[in-house]
Amino acid sequence: MAQLLRVQNFNVSSDGVGAGADGDQSLENPFGLPGAERLFAWAGATASWPMRTDPGGSRGLDDHFTRDYARNIGAEIMGRNKFGPQRGPWQDHEWRGWWGEEPPFRTPVFVMTHHPRPSFTLADTTFHFVDADPATVLARAKEAARGKDVRLGGGVTTVRRFLDAGLVDTLHVVVSPVELGTGLRLWESSDELLDRYHREVVPSPSGVTHHLFWRR
Amino acid sequence: MAQLLRVQNFNVSSDGVGAGADGDQSLENPFGLPGAERLFAWAGATASWPMRTDPGGSRGLDDHFTRDYARNIGAEIMGRNKFGPQRGPWQDHEWRGWWGEEPPFRTPVFVMTHHPRPSFTLADTTFHFVDADPATVLARAKEAARGKDVRLGGGVTTVRRFLDAGLVDTLHVVVSPVELGTGLRLWESSDELLDRYHREVVPSPSGVTHHLFWRR
Repeated sequence: MAQLLRVQNFNVSSDGVGAGADGDQSLENPFGLPGAERLFAWAGATASWPMRTDPGGSRGLDDHFTRDYARNIGAEIMGRNKFGPQRGPWQDHEWRGWWGEEPPFRTPVFVMTHHPRPSFTLADTTFHFVDADPATVLARAKEAARGKDVRLGGGVTTVRRFLDAGLVDTLHVVVSPVELGTGLRLWESSDELLDRYHREVVPSPSGVTHHLFWRR
Repeated sequence: MAQLLRVQNFNVSSDGVGAGADGDQSLENPFGLPGAERLFAWAGATASWPMRTDPGGSRGLDDHFTRDYARNIGAEIMGRNKFGPQRGPWQDHEWRGWWGEEPPFRTPVFVMTHHPRPSFTLADTTFHFVDADPATVLARAKEAARGKDVRLGGGVTTVRRFLDAGLVDTLHVVVSPVELGTGLRLWESSDELLDRYHREVVPSPSGVTHHLFWRR
């Protein structure tokens, strides 16, 4: 089986916004966007949400997507902004990302940054910091994934870069019925991808709409 | 995490029929029902169909269900009719089910029958034959599953028995737009389960409708 590069459970507003504008992130506000938490509510309500600590949660359609989060994933690629809000050279190697002592990734994670720093491990997750173009980072991640797929974790800018380079095999984007107006947009409309991808649009009883893409 | 008993990718017609009437099965016609193959077409079209041997296939909504087939499954329970068409005492131990030399289950499988026979292994699948009530078989399957979930593979009669015993935690039933008229019915209407289960009904672009149930 081919190793796929998969975008999964990527959340945007009805107007395509997935994060605040560059510079609006902070330690207190990881998404740099008032109301961003409304984009994730659907996932937190499911039984299989990776960050869930209590029993319960729904086991319907939305749960089929959160439970697919880790299936056959051997590595993740993320932009620096998904790791932390800092810009420029690292001032503090003691700060190890905003994912806590047990990050939900549980694989090698490749953080794209112009400012590499030493790799480190938290529980089952090892963070590597790489200054390279998307194709090179993907090659490293695929090697680390040992035959499994690679998840492209975001944020918006990172997903756009890999899409523009033609490297993404499948995308699962969750559109919430919330209009945010400003911020970084994944797309103006998901129609933009139809020249290169098949698309299915699946409304969920929870109110969100799942957009599924795979290569033509 | 609790070990669940899960029904997955279970196919019925628009009038609830999942197999031919008892006695209509044969070696040449495993479902004992003309047209039954139309109930499975949706699955065969997906990239993750466990029996797929060539590349290709869709990666949309339907594929999310076929790819969930083996996730966190440690054992399967099936009725005798899913193993073979014979009735009464086994006449021929050389015949080892109609799943071929590489059955798609890849776990221990517990076949419910009043006529036990010795266990045997084909590739990654070991078949055990048990003459016991549903609760007892489930206890054995959970032990064999080593902490993972158990899949209840069918057929119709077996699913009904476990439902009636209150043992099923989640169900995924795929309703095809095909009316079969005669045969074994899973239900008259899926409304019958609403006293005990949450339900979501999700139409797929392929034309089938996914019915998802989890305990109230």
